[in-house]
Amino acid sequence: MSGMMKALVKHHRGGGAQLKEVPIPVIGEGEVLIKVKATSICGTDVHIYNWDDWSASRVNPPYVFGHEFAGEVVEVSKSATRVKVGDYVSAETHIVCHRCPQCLTGQYHICDNTKIIGVDTQGCFAQYVAVPEENLWVNPATLPADIASIQEPMGNAVHTVLNGDVTSKSVAVIGCGPIGLMAVAVAKAAGASQVLAFDLNPYRLQLAKDMGATTVIHSDEEDPVTVAKQKTNGFGVDVVCEMSGHPLAMDQGFKMVANGGRVAILSLPVKPVTLDVTNDIVFKGVYVQGITGRKMFETWQQVSRLLEANQVNMQSLITHHLPLEEFEQGFALMNEGMCGKVVLYPNE
Amino acid sequence: MSGMMKALVKHHRGGGAQLKEVPIPVIGEGEVLIKVKATSICGTDVHIYNWDDWSASRVNPPYVFGHEFAGEVVEVSKSATRVKVGDYVSAETHIVCHRCPQCLTGQYHICDNTKIIGVDTQGCFAQYVAVPEENLWVNPATLPADIASIQEPMGNAVHTVLNGDVTSKSVAVIGCGPIGLMAVAVAKAAGASQVLAFDLNPYRLQLAKDMGATTVIHSDEEDPVTVAKQKTNGFGVDVVCEMSGHPLAMDQGFKMVANGGRVAILSLPVKPVTLDVTNDIVFKGVYVQGITGRKMFETWQQVSRLLEANQVNMQSLITHHLPLEEFEQGFALMNEGMCGKVVLYPNE
Amino acid sequence: MSGMMKALVKHHRGGGAQLKEVPIPVIGEGEVLIKVKATSICGTDVHIYNWDDWSASRVNPPYVFGHEFAGEVVEVSKSATRVKVGDYVSAETHIVCHRCPQCLTGQYHICDNTKIIGVDTQGCFAQYVAVPEENLWVNPATLPADIASIQEPMGNAVHTVLNGDVTSKSVAVIGCGPIGLMAVAVAKAAGASQVLAFDLNPYRLQLAKDMGATTVIHSDEEDPVTVAKQKTNGFGVDVVCEMSGHPLAMDQGFKMVANGGRVAILSLPVKPVTLDVTNDIVFKGVYVQGITGRKMFETWQQVSRLLEANQVNMQSLITHHLPLEEFEQGFALMNEGMCGKVVLYPNE
Amino acid sequence: MSGMMKALVKHHRGGGAQLKEVPIPVIGEGEVLIKVKATSICGTDVHIYNWDDWSASRVNPPYVFGHEFAGEVVEVSKSATRVKVGDYVSAETHIVCHRCPQCLTGQYHICDNTKIIGVDTQGCFAQYVAVPEENLWVNPATLPADIASIQEPMGNAVHTVLNGDVTSKSVAVIGCGPIGLMAVAVAKAAGASQVLAFDLNPYRLQLAKDMGATTVIHSDEEDPVTVAKQKTNGFGVDVVCEMSGHPLAMDQGFKMVANGGRVAILSLPVKPVTLDVTNDIVFKGVYVQGITGRKMFETWQQVSRLLEANQVNMQSLITHHLPLEEFEQGFALMNEGMCGKVVLYPNE
Repeated sequence: MSGMMKALVKHHRGGGAQLKEVPIPVIGEGEVLIKVKATSICGTDVHIYNWDDWSASRVNPPYVFGHEFAGEVVEVSKSATRVKVGDYVSAETHIVCHRCPQCLTGQYHICDNTKIIGVDTQGCFAQYVAVPEENLWVNPATLPADIASIQEPMGNAVHTVLNGDVTSKSVAVIGCGPIGLMAVAVAKAAGASQVLAFDLNPYRLQLAKDMGATTVIHSDEEDPVTVAKQKTNGFGVDVVCEMSGHPLAMDQGFKMVANGGRVAILSLPVKPVTLDVTNDIVFKGVYVQGITGRKMFETWQQVSRLLEANQVNMQSLITHHLPLEEFEQGFALMNEGMCGKVVLYPNE
Repeated sequence: MSGMMKALVKHHRGGGAQLKEVPIPVIGEGEVLIKVKATSICGTDVHIYNWDDWSASRVNPPYVFGHEFAGEVVEVSKSATRVKVGDYVSAETHIVCHRCPQCLTGQYHICDNTKIIGVDTQGCFAQYVAVPEENLWVNPATLPADIASIQEPMGNAVHTVLNGDVTSKSVAVIGCGPIGLMAVAVAKAAGASQVLAFDLNPYRLQLAKDMGATTVIHSDEEDPVTVAKQKTNGFGVDVVCEMSGHPLAMDQGFKMVANGGRVAILSLPVKPVTLDVTNDIVFKGVYVQGITGRKMFETWQQVSRLLEANQVNMQSLITHHLPLEEFEQGFALMNEGMCGKVVLYPNE
Repeated sequence: MSGMMKALVKHHRGGGAQLKEVPIPVIGEGEVLIKVKATSICGTDVHIYNWDDWSASRVNPPYVFGHEFAGEVVEVSKSATRVKVGDYVSAETHIVCHRCPQCLTGQYHICDNTKIIGVDTQGCFAQYVAVPEENLWVNPATLPADIASIQEPMGNAVHTVLNGDVTSKSVAVIGCGPIGLMAVAVAKAAGASQVLAFDLNPYRLQLAKDMGATTVIHSDEEDPVTVAKQKTNGFGVDVVCEMSGHPLAMDQGFKMVANGGRVAILSLPVKPVTLDVTNDIVFKGVYVQGITGRKMFETWQQVSRLLEANQVNMQSLITHHLPLEEFEQGFALMNEGMCGKVVLYPNE
Repeated sequence: MSGMMKALVKHHRGGGAQLKEVPIPVIGEGEVLIKVKATSICGTDVHIYNWDDWSASRVNPPYVFGHEFAGEVVEVSKSATRVKVGDYVSAETHIVCHRCPQCLTGQYHICDNTKIIGVDTQGCFAQYVAVPEENLWVNPATLPADIASIQEPMGNAVHTVLNGDVTSKSVAVIGCGPIGLMAVAVAKAAGASQVLAFDLNPYRLQLAKDMGATTVIHSDEEDPVTVAKQKTNGFGVDVVCEMSGHPLAMDQGFKMVANGGRVAILSLPVKPVTLDVTNDIVFKGVYVQGITGRKMFETWQQVSRLLEANQVNMQSLITHHLPLEEFEQGFALMNEGMCGKVVLYPNE
């Protein structure tokens, strides 16, 4: 397949992005070309759009960014065995090496040689995207494209929440960005006895309630640790999902977790974090887990089945549907925090 | 406290039982006297009532039987520290030794020296029952007594279902007696993607549907293994909860479980079971778990929290409420399988 | 590379095999050609050599059999990334599909579409063998070729023994064929407090002692269950590794395992097995694990490191070194049980 | 039993301690009196002896301190069931509440109401000590008293090292005080492929070598992270046991751990610790475990069996045997770090 397509290009080493006509990608051996039905904006895309320190150190404009999507396979390379033209797919974003000790032992999500679609390669904010066949996940035909496009971030939430038991346990979700909101729904679906959601943004706290939080706490208006203890007979919460990246909130998470509890950290604090290791980790016998990416494809299978079984309802989380052309509005909403997930449509 | 009370007495080594006036139990050191608000009939009680081989080999009439209950503490021994007069409690049925390797490592449920309330000791089909303080579980005041009395068997269901991951997985429950029905509800609450319930009794299959089963199968009208494979793209179910005790049904469970799946066996087949170990366990890399009792009090905590959080609704499972005097009707219903749980009230 | 080579050919649907000149394999895309330095005889090879029912139902003579080996890469296909010409390698024997739910979740060892080298494909009882690059494991240069060739079966032993905790636990190994003997060494290396080895062959019981068994039991001369209980204060052994395939021995394993213990079954009984599920699995809260193959490459990494660290010493297990030409002697030794591992050398 | 005994008394709120005549303890209900054969000095005792900030905030002189011991039961209370006069015992130091959620779920080591023998109660640096019967562990008659007395700290090492897999893995022990040295031996016994020991004290590094460390690193003379990476092909160590309490060393531990690795922290840093959570925990998918006390009596059973099976040899770790009268020398050695374990004998 050849020709030109619409794409959102990170065009320079500075703020913003441009909608441009660029060539449709030519697939290499092992790759597949996909016509993008829906693509959603990730926090990472916002960093790239805004051009922060991390972006400056990592990405090389000009290139097409974006990595969350659903679409239809329109071309496959001759070695393809898992998918065929016409398949309805989404994709794992991490391209891994299959050679390091982590890959050889099935821990692909912590491969040291990971490349990320839309960060290290051409992305999916476009009418077409080329990705390795091995990264694809085939969706059921009945799954709406917008929901299918947000499976990748939902995988982060699932990996965080389900990296230990939550059934009958109390769960705190600190930070109610889109992945935090998904975590609320996943914890509830997995049978958590309580889900406490913490944030500073009333709009997102309302979304947390809609997703099933049993208590929502504005962390500036109530003391998070005090509320968490009150709701748990003074013992603290069993599981803390840290998704804020704020050192203060992270410290509160360690203060509110119960003896023997679990703190799963998905967030990426930009500065070193100071912790009271003795009192908040050692004496309490706490487990801390660094969470990155998704366990391929164990996590994808979990995500897919939770959606198919209607154990989680993600529809209310997708607050905005926009044509790709209105990307500026999408990024503005994300920057303001006045949205759940924003889905862009490049082919409508 | 002294005086006489009503009690259901297993009066002889034969069928039936008799309602009698007997002395209120005198508590020993470490024991607590409880006024029984509600007590439910277990399958074990039916075996004793009917007087089968197992009963003849184990229990010594005359004695008061029954072991599932909720009530109020009316007297404590002087060493009591966990409960006080007025507390609203239920009780773990297994009295353990605290000296064997299993007890010393926290595996009380498989203590080799276990005594069972109402089997090896005087039970709770009575106005009062004396039990060791250490066996008590304090209920929240808001929990209805009938629900509180069935926490013990619900603990069996919770121990079986949650002895491994079920979130996003397909679960088969083979045998829809009361504990099987509870297992259906627990699997659903824990986020199972599918819950397939198997039985031969249409009344109980309807109850399974009410408890949340996504598919109910009459095992004589449809082939259980065929249906299980159809519902799982040919791969089989992830988790099998065997609660029937029938060798044929157990074999079907091993045939329907997926590669790498889990078979949790709570049932007690009365004869040896013949299994195709090579094809159904080894080549499939299956995990088999013998399940007995409850993990004290880890399981009680899970039960209590699932109930308190309304993650499971057990009310529709309690199909009959009877005064203790109408015990004959209760046992008849249990023998016919035309009931969920039957709760008796000795003090009303 | 082209030309002819020596190979041991299963030439007809009956007993025996023939040493023949056959063409050196031509590698396909994704394959690698290896010059075989050492190749060892597996029990599976003996089944094929003797031509039993399983062989008749599975393999298609004429073809080259054998699947345990070490050798040097002499040719790679153009897509090769993990190995290069000159690398010193062994190979995982299972060729998996990468598409089924098990593969997608990293459980390659229970892929339903597994093909086995030397069973479903041309094998390594030859001067050269072609295998998929993805199946290769690169050996350290210092590892002797005979030891390198037995890593595959050692992987079975490691997978069985280390599929749960053994440190400080009592371990029974039932059946002291070569993999059972390896299991003895692995259990000892992992810090088992006791290793009890059971067999009927005094020669192999002596080898078990050499590998570190703390007690060896001739199962016809002493009662296995009685001895196991005596050695464990009456409580039974914590971990049973069943490697005999005999229904009676398997039943003894279930009788000797402690409450809460683990029974890992690697053997493949040819007939259905009758078990006392109620008393030996349910009441005891036993875990049973079907074990097949190796967890790629988690198990290979464990094997490799245990060898490199000298935590296990496999040298005394290799009792016979023969040129490929003397294969008849090798198979005779295996049939008689008068050997540990037998290693054949096709290029010396 | 009554009369006077020799005891080492923490006599005032300041440095040092005094050997005095004090009354033999009178046992209460549930307690047992033990004649102390051997008692060892813990780092905690050194803190109390030296009178640091922690001691000033926690202990109330005058009282008898010390908590590691072995001895003979000389008197039991009437409710005793687990031990009898003449039994040879050691004791778990943590006295727990049996009422909190942690105790009820078998996690006694993180009971929030824990009292510690010799810290919150009268201790064992004396001819006799009274402890709750439930805290006792019965020793095999063949175990030397000095070894029996150090089982409690060895339990800390076992809890730290075996709180996850170590067989075939690389293990770093940071900080080679007595418990660190025990951890080296335990890791080796459990089949670690490498054990790297880090300290600043050449005397203790030599002891680490004697206990089985495969590499010893003086952290001021070589860069710990560089060495750890060199020894592991650049990937880092699989398991870090942090036993130094130094923020710098702890940070090095997080830098040297491999992706997916485990950091078990037993040490108690006196100040908050600053960590690079994003790069050293989240991106690497690291597990951090706070370790406190011992899992009663799971850990005691592990300790006991490792000793009984000679899987660890602790004799060379006990570098000094002194009569109780020479306690000053014992504490001086501990303060200087010129010892392994120091054992005191109050009845010789």
